[in-house]
Amino acid sequence: MDPTHDPSLTSWIESANGGGDFSIQNLPFGVFRRRDEDEPGRIGIAIGEMIVDVTACRDEGRFSGLAERAAGACAAPVLNPLMRLGAEPRRELRRQVSALLAADSPAYRSNRRLGNRILVAQRNAEMLLPAEIGDYTDFYASVHHATNVGGMFRPDNPLLPNYKWVPIGYHGRASSIVPSGTPVRRPRGQSRPPDADSPSFGPTRSLDYEMELGLFVGPGNPLGRPVPIELAEEQIFGFCLVNDWSARDLQAWEYQPLGPFLAKNFATSISPWVVTLEALEPFRAPAFARPPGDPAPLDYLTSPANAESGAVAVSVEVHLMTARMREQGLEPVRLSRGSAAELYWTPAQLVAHHTSNGCDLRAGDLLASGTISGPARESRGCLLELTWRGAEPLALPGGETRKFLEDGDEVIMRGYCEREGAARIGFGECRGVVLEAG
Amino acid sequence: MDPTHDPSLTSWIESANGGGDFSIQNLPFGVFRRRDEDEPGRIGIAIGEMIVDVTACRDEGRFSGLAERAAGACAAPVLNPLMRLGAEPRRELRRQVSALLAADSPAYRSNRRLGNRILVAQRNAEMLLPAEIGDYTDFYASVHHATNVGGMFRPDNPLLPNYKWVPIGYHGRASSIVPSGTPVRRPRGQSRPPDADSPSFGPTRSLDYEMELGLFVGPGNPLGRPVPIELAEEQIFGFCLVNDWSARDLQAWEYQPLGPFLAKNFATSISPWVVTLEALEPFRAPAFARPPGDPAPLDYLTSPANAESGAVAVSVEVHLMTARMREQGLEPVRLSRGSAAELYWTPAQLVAHHTSNGCDLRAGDLLASGTISGPARESRGCLLELTWRGAEPLALPGGETRKFLEDGDEVIMRGYCEREGAARIGFGECRGVVLEAG
Repeated sequence: MDPTHDPSLTSWIESANGGGDFSIQNLPFGVFRRRDEDEPGRIGIAIGEMIVDVTACRDEGRFSGLAERAAGACAAPVLNPLMRLGAEPRRELRRQVSALLAADSPAYRSNRRLGNRILVAQRNAEMLLPAEIGDYTDFYASVHHATNVGGMFRPDNPLLPNYKWVPIGYHGRASSIVPSGTPVRRPRGQSRPPDADSPSFGPTRSLDYEMELGLFVGPGNPLGRPVPIELAEEQIFGFCLVNDWSARDLQAWEYQPLGPFLAKNFATSISPWVVTLEALEPFRAPAFARPPGDPAPLDYLTSPANAESGAVAVSVEVHLMTARMREQGLEPVRLSRGSAAELYWTPAQLVAHHTSNGCDLRAGDLLASGTISGPARESRGCLLELTWRGAEPLALPGGETRKFLEDGDEVIMRGYCEREGAARIGFGECRGVVLEAG
Repeated sequence: MDPTHDPSLTSWIESANGGGDFSIQNLPFGVFRRRDEDEPGRIGIAIGEMIVDVTACRDEGRFSGLAERAAGACAAPVLNPLMRLGAEPRRELRRQVSALLAADSPAYRSNRRLGNRILVAQRNAEMLLPAEIGDYTDFYASVHHATNVGGMFRPDNPLLPNYKWVPIGYHGRASSIVPSGTPVRRPRGQSRPPDADSPSFGPTRSLDYEMELGLFVGPGNPLGRPVPIELAEEQIFGFCLVNDWSARDLQAWEYQPLGPFLAKNFATSISPWVVTLEALEPFRAPAFARPPGDPAPLDYLTSPANAESGAVAVSVEVHLMTARMREQGLEPVRLSRGSAAELYWTPAQLVAHHTSNGCDLRAGDLLASGTISGPARESRGCLLELTWRGAEPLALPGGETRKFLEDGDEVIMRGYCEREGAARIGFGECRGVVLEAG
């Protein structure tokens, strides 16, 4: 077993050992800034309630070989240079950081004040975007989501004929991706109510979230050079949570024939910690079991390894805290729980498809899964599905109801991997509160 | 009259005075590299057959005030910092460059060798992408194109109900935008022929170009702060030509419900010179004259100035040179000629719409018009329309025919503004040759 997967491994940083998100088996990468300092971002690794400052470790001479090379790339204020190096330097850096943080670390034994030099408390840090995102692609990989949404708009024909052949995706907006915690202003736009002859312009009346899993690309492929599925995972740096905020009334009016545009590009929130593919190794799962009658994927989307363990069993939850619940001292209420293992396409299939025409991915590009919904009602990953387009409002603790989001609502997304015999791997949170239209 | 618009103004650089693309009234910005040097890009201004090296002029102490500030931003290898400064510094830089290059320039009179220090011949330069393009948006602003294409796919319902209300657009791929001259490899992908039960994967059989006008953003707006239409032109740095290469068979199969993706993102070519809004001033035209019965644009897309002169009367031409024509020593053949003045939406309307939901544009972002087609057959801006989906092949000089592009075909786009009493403003060329599938 790779030592970073040993569930019995503990850290001298006590808060890493309590079964929380950031165990020593996790070690996700992010970019932070000390709250009281006006400095560019620094690259860190989450451990318990702390952050390991990678550059500070490097300055202490803690790395060698490929890990030293990876740590050198962490001198940048974004993860792109590290992502560009590809998998092997990242893996070696993880191994050496794991050894440094382990309870039996010789470095710690010989210097009990090591933490003062390499750790920053998460509560004293502001988390920034982990990378400069060149291009952002959003897929539509949940067949349950596609079937539900298709059924609302096309009851006779919910799933289009291409769905089970093509990993459907589209390009989203990179500029308006914001880190967790950034408030999101309710957008204005055109919509045409069903009973109106002509559209009007104003604040959206059906603001929604979408619970998605995001994938950061590294190292990237040159233009004109597809990535075969067998090598696709070498292009995956890691994963985060994505809230693809959506204005459903704008979307219904604008999306034909070229897809969503202003209904989505006003904001996309992401969680700040990027969980590596290595950390997810114990939580790999078989690709989606296609029901009888579904076609097999075409050759360029097929490999034995992908079929056997191409999926990632990440559980995702959406919680809501309204302004009134906050006033009443209530806890956030969970709206849904789903799993990325139920996506129709695996991460490797998304990468292979995206590059199959020669399109280049660059280190730092973000690919999102699309809304993660499962077959059960409680696994639906957006309000559009949960309330069936507003027809079945949700009852909230404290007596409120919701069809769509209201001003002051905070959406809190969480992700984690858990199973017997493996340490918990958590994604932290992706939060965003809705501000009134400006 | 602003001196930069005086059509009688000539330059001491003789090649600028012959009625070509790059008169002293034009002065477009671009990024070049000397062919024999391994250096980062340098910012230049085209004049006749030469390029003015902006940094070399600055080193000579040729600029003052706002122009000096603008020239300082030109020390970068891309135009983004200059774009970020906004309109006024750019305008002042243009005025001072114009004075420096004018036939009566005191600087030239006192030093006839000035050209040796500030000029590079275009034939000795390689043109690079003018900017780091953060996000690329492609619109669908030609009602003639939308009607033609819609009619092929939906004969009963060619133009969707939203078209005359919403400037339809979608996000394209920034990573695969390449400068003119870059060969384009025929993409592979999924398509399903009309007579087939299931799709297959292979090289596209209907590769097409789309003739578009592109707009570079500068300075950009913050997230959450829409740009009102009255201020929208302050966000336009300048224009270029865009070839939105398209694989029609892939497109037909993949585009529902989220829009074009792999059918477009394998390559987009742009011309390297960015023609400023200032240079186009003599060629402003009224916004599209909506026929009776069409709705008026909503308020957020309406201003008196936009109605009066919001359009740009840029003529665009597509020429084709096949491998066999090249062998036979034939000239490229013109396939179409259209005008950006016939677009249903003006550049200011595209900017105002794009930001109306609070979406942020950043300096260097590219907005393209969508295919520019006019009402006449010879003004159709892509092969899909010209050959009516392959049903009416084009006859070429030398005896060949074309439904769609074949390997070895070179597409050559040109753009220019011409009218009595104004100097010609040219865009140069946007070229790309098709390579066989890899």
